[in-house]
Amino acid sequence: MGTLLLVLDLSGTFVFALSGATAGVKNRLDLFGVLVLSFAAGNAGGIARDLLIGATPPAAISNWHYLAVSLLAGIFTFWRPSIIDRLRNPVLLFDAAGLGLFAVAGTQKALVFGLNPVMAAALGMLTGIGGGMTRDVLLTEIPIVLRADIYAIAALAGAALVVIGSALRLPATAVTIAGAVLCFGLRFMAIRRGWHLPIAGEPEQPADRKDDGARRL
Amino acid sequence: MGTLLLVLDLSGTFVFALSGATAGVKNRLDLFGVLVLSFAAGNAGGIARDLLIGATPPAAISNWHYLAVSLLAGIFTFWRPSIIDRLRNPVLLFDAAGLGLFAVAGTQKALVFGLNPVMAAALGMLTGIGGGMTRDVLLTEIPIVLRADIYAIAALAGAALVVIGSALRLPATAVTIAGAVLCFGLRFMAIRRGWHLPIAGEPEQPADRKDDGARRL
Amino acid sequence: MGTLLLVLDLSGTFVFALSGATAGVKNRLDLFGVLVLSFAAGNAGGIARDLLIGATPPAAISNWHYLAVSLLAGIFTFWRPSIIDRLRNPVLLFDAAGLGLFAVAGTQKALVFGLNPVMAAALGMLTGIGGGMTRDVLLTEIPIVLRADIYAIAALAGAALVVIGSALRLPATAVTIAGAVLCFGLRFMAIRRGWHLPIAGEPEQPADRKDDGARRL
Repeated sequence: MGTLLLVLDLSGTFVFALSGATAGVKNRLDLFGVLVLSFAAGNAGGIARDLLIGATPPAAISNWHYLAVSLLAGIFTFWRPSIIDRLRNPVLLFDAAGLGLFAVAGTQKALVFGLNPVMAAALGMLTGIGGGMTRDVLLTEIPIVLRADIYAIAALAGAALVVIGSALRLPATAVTIAGAVLCFGLRFMAIRRGWHLPIAGEPEQPADRKDDGARRL
Repeated sequence: MGTLLLVLDLSGTFVFALSGATAGVKNRLDLFGVLVLSFAAGNAGGIARDLLIGATPPAAISNWHYLAVSLLAGIFTFWRPSIIDRLRNPVLLFDAAGLGLFAVAGTQKALVFGLNPVMAAALGMLTGIGGGMTRDVLLTEIPIVLRADIYAIAALAGAALVVIGSALRLPATAVTIAGAVLCFGLRFMAIRRGWHLPIAGEPEQPADRKDDGARRL
Repeated sequence: MGTLLLVLDLSGTFVFALSGATAGVKNRLDLFGVLVLSFAAGNAGGIARDLLIGATPPAAISNWHYLAVSLLAGIFTFWRPSIIDRLRNPVLLFDAAGLGLFAVAGTQKALVFGLNPVMAAALGMLTGIGGGMTRDVLLTEIPIVLRADIYAIAALAGAALVVIGSALRLPATAVTIAGAVLCFGLRFMAIRRGWHLPIAGEPEQPADRKDDGARRL
């Protein structure tokens, strides 16, 4: 279980770091700014989770693998932005993959530290959304989690699957992979099909008005 | 004392969550964005306080009541924004009430954890202003605490009253209520009467110039 | 060693608090907003470091000297902005001095708490850049560390010198002063000479195009 957790965590760190680096390159930050943003996007969620469950120093600080993986993603994105450019909406895709991996890894770690199931799922969600929120706040944008169609709820669905599977004593590896796939799938479909949650005060509005709201945000 | 502290904390969480949800609805966030903002506004100050005094996991994480109260406030605001709309400047009012409740509850908890009186009052103030600052930063606005006429100083006044009452061994319940009322009253009067602190570099300016500054911020 | 660490930390707090207060005055915040920004700029980096290495409550919370030094810097800047104005680019200069002092002090403290050399240097850098990042995020600006020509890398150079000197068992005081001077010198020269790191996607661009990029950020 420990190895699975580490692999998930490092994979999530890598893809989130790619999303941070891509956002940094788009905002024309310099090399070091891109690397700082890589590390922040890749590790802020996990660091927040570890501080909140009292696991100090956080894994991302005591274990240099997280820093190495983040820098690797940042340097790759910095020197080869053309590869990233060719993918359509790469920030969104990396973000969705990182979301799924972090949501399940964060939930597993919170359960290991003895949190109750409800808060373990919430912390899994926080692990998933914390890095992206930090990335967006550093670039002075309203975090995507607060305005994207289906985002935090996808992380929560993946986290909930892990919690339920754990309560039913199903095999941890299978449940963890299923949770990550569920989260990624929900987020991916939301991007492709434009799924979204209701916005307050306009239950009767036609779709174009909602688009207008999204654009204004 | 423990029960009083919990009731104050949950009441403050509820009103701050209302302020976060109202700000979220105004910015046309979706349902989940509004709920995230409710939780952040309602709990960021208390979580920051608990992390700083070493009380991990923070109450808002280990105790699911805080999450439930935040979600309740968020869902109510989301489905019935018209009720909130009818109140005048509701964000400011909820904010003032939350400020008072959190300032005294935060000070009490810091005293219980053995901090010296000066830093206990400062942490009470932080508990009061942390949620609103997080709400504003997430919406990429300069936090109201940095530009409002009388804000942090109202929280500090309430916190100071609790510290002084505690040093004089006055009854805790009475002192706590008095501190919350003092803070709310100061903030409310500041909003109504336009009380403000001086702004640097223009001690001799007429009032309209100051208004201009406030508008530009 | 303990005394040197405290003096460095308080000096760094003072100059960073000056930078925070100056930025606050420029943004026409009121007196309390300026003081809050002084404390945040002066202490956010050290508080983040202490939370991450598990040293709770952080020095800036348990020891009232940090609050006193921050308020002193804030009040001085607030009442005498003309003195600050006369200096050229004072925010940048104070920022550079604070960066050097915090980078070496943060590295020393992380080494004392048993972190490995790589992460100790990284935490020294974080101590140096955390306050300025918090100051900029609170004023809803993209942190200078992400876009300035040579910034975080100057902090990292100073921190690395301390780590290497510690590994070679050189005298701690000399190594610490050398690290702070190296960091300040690098940052100062970067400002004077316009040194900068490459920006992604335009390795072949002439200098004026790069300036355009910097201005747009």
